[in-house]
Amino acid sequence: MTAGRRDRARDVLRAAGVDALLLCDPAAVAWLTGHETSIATGPSPFAVGAMALVDSDGSVVLFAAEDEEIPSGAERDAVRFAGFGVGPLDRLGAARRAVAPYLLRRRVGVEAATAPVGLLSAAASWVDVSAAILAARAIKDVDELQRLRTSIALCDVGQAALRAALQPGCTELDLWATARGAMDARAGEPLVVLADLVSGPRTADVGGPPTSRTVCDGDLVLCDLAPRHDGYWGDSCATVAVGEPSSWAVTAHRRVCEALEAAVAAVRPGLTAGALDALVRERLGDLPHHVGHGIGGSPHEEPRVIPTATMELEAGMVIALEPGIYGEGEGVRVEVVVLVEDSGATVLSGHDLTL
Amino acid sequence: MTAGRRDRARDVLRAAGVDALLLCDPAAVAWLTGHETSIATGPSPFAVGAMALVDSDGSVVLFAAEDEEIPSGAERDAVRFAGFGVGPLDRLGAARRAVAPYLLRRRVGVEAATAPVGLLSAAASWVDVSAAILAARAIKDVDELQRLRTSIALCDVGQAALRAALQPGCTELDLWATARGAMDARAGEPLVVLADLVSGPRTADVGGPPTSRTVCDGDLVLCDLAPRHDGYWGDSCATVAVGEPSSWAVTAHRRVCEALEAAVAAVRPGLTAGALDALVRERLGDLPHHVGHGIGGSPHEEPRVIPTATMELEAGMVIALEPGIYGEGEGVRVEVVVLVEDSGATVLSGHDLTL
Repeated sequence: MTAGRRDRARDVLRAAGVDALLLCDPAAVAWLTGHETSIATGPSPFAVGAMALVDSDGSVVLFAAEDEEIPSGAERDAVRFAGFGVGPLDRLGAARRAVAPYLLRRRVGVEAATAPVGLLSAAASWVDVSAAILAARAIKDVDELQRLRTSIALCDVGQAALRAALQPGCTELDLWATARGAMDARAGEPLVVLADLVSGPRTADVGGPPTSRTVCDGDLVLCDLAPRHDGYWGDSCATVAVGEPSSWAVTAHRRVCEALEAAVAAVRPGLTAGALDALVRERLGDLPHHVGHGIGGSPHEEPRVIPTATMELEAGMVIALEPGIYGEGEGVRVEVVVLVEDSGATVLSGHDLTL
Repeated sequence: MTAGRRDRARDVLRAAGVDALLLCDPAAVAWLTGHETSIATGPSPFAVGAMALVDSDGSVVLFAAEDEEIPSGAERDAVRFAGFGVGPLDRLGAARRAVAPYLLRRRVGVEAATAPVGLLSAAASWVDVSAAILAARAIKDVDELQRLRTSIALCDVGQAALRAALQPGCTELDLWATARGAMDARAGEPLVVLADLVSGPRTADVGGPPTSRTVCDGDLVLCDLAPRHDGYWGDSCATVAVGEPSSWAVTAHRRVCEALEAAVAAVRPGLTAGALDALVRERLGDLPHHVGHGIGGSPHEEPRVIPTATMELEAGMVIALEPGIYGEGEGVRVEVVVLVEDSGATVLSGHDLTL
């Protein structure tokens, strides 16, 4: 744990004029404590998710249910509360009692979209610090970069497995099982994966989950894989032709790759995310989605590469760039993740982008 | 949509003395609207999850981000708000503005562990109705039973695939990929699955996620599969021997199967969940977990089959029963789901329980 992001969290606390921050978003919890909150199966019926409290001296306390596995180094400073068990159900109460002494009669900064209403009864008042936390999370510390590199390497594994398995007659779900299995095997654990996996005419629809559609000769397969590991997300996209691609696909693929190269080449501290967005839209016309997005404890975070973005790129930001072209019955997208450095962008992704 | 559960929701509203209910738990949303909230990748960075509002006349409104796919029949009465997009990020605001007219100066019942604190600013006050909602959800309507049967049939598919793939040399993650792939293929979509998949000495630890451990001749493999489909969960467990099981395993397996049979035979309306729990603990000694649990929109819900439970079984409840014995270096568990009917229990699970 480096001091960098805890200093930024304390700055958020001071700017908001509060006595403490209580952050419940899994992304913020991973950011401040290194703990990967369990998210794969939705909210637990037994306990609220893990939380991170930042005190005015910059110290951080992790709160987690007893059955959540937390990082070995975090146990000493963690506060545990009842979770899965055989006692009467009190999903909220155990957590509320755990945090109450830290909130008592204090002004508390929260992320108001994810803080449960019942948790803050001990606090004097709360204010929403979501935007400031998002901004503070945009610049990555060294250990966060290491986690991101690991998750991006998992993307490389999944994309390679999909490409190797691709042949007419397999279904989108077959390809999904192969890509996912390869990533899980590399990680040694089941991963949460956010994905688009579409083939043939479905590629024109930008994305969607895999289905039982059978892949045919001449189809494109668009696969956007974003696995989460150690609380940090990777992201990646490639579009692959099965057999001979159409001339439309060849041209579209060349254009999105050129747009991606131009965007990567343009990345430097001081460029606004909006200008980076414009650079790609000028080349490709309007996209039905963002040109890119920050990535970290959340699969999409600041800096968002969208038309209205005024945030300036800074060294230490990590951005996924994903230009695409979607036509009549076919679509193409490629995506890589880059690290913003003083000298420009370093591409962290290693997967094959060829058609 | 039958009237049954909406009537029960309105009863909760009246008993709490509130003007409306605003329910944010995915289980409650599925229960009231049939909508399967997206949960597989954690909270969306773009929007809060779907919500269900119950008004004092018993009418129900579904609130969902524009990019959430909702049931075709639900679109007419649904209120949509901005989600994934290229505009400035306002994760909370869009949802708050959507619900505000329905909450204005009203007393609102919420599930306080899952209702975001920032969502209720328009309301006059809120009260926690979690326990009453859990109780109301315990009895299933006919269409809920159909969904549960579908999810339990997916368990059967996953358990059969695992059993067929089991051989020395495969890893727990290989088995996981096989079971999951088979369930996804049957469903035609990627499923959220809550699972234990442990082998060899790990079976003594009750559960845990699959790892890269290689399965050896003589191992037990304990696989507890709970897939979610259409917002409703299945559940199942079997313990399978690779090659020749130990005499401890054979005896333990016979005892848990006998305990399961006795529990199934004892199920009838009027029996308390605590008495059902005691019946199994008397046979097997103390378990490190519940004897069973209700199942529906949440993988664990009322009636919980635990020592302190006073809830009486009623016709229409659906319960997973999962006795186990965990020894030195080996553990055995079996699990089936039953429907409580006036005449007793009907077993809904169809998977093979043999060792």
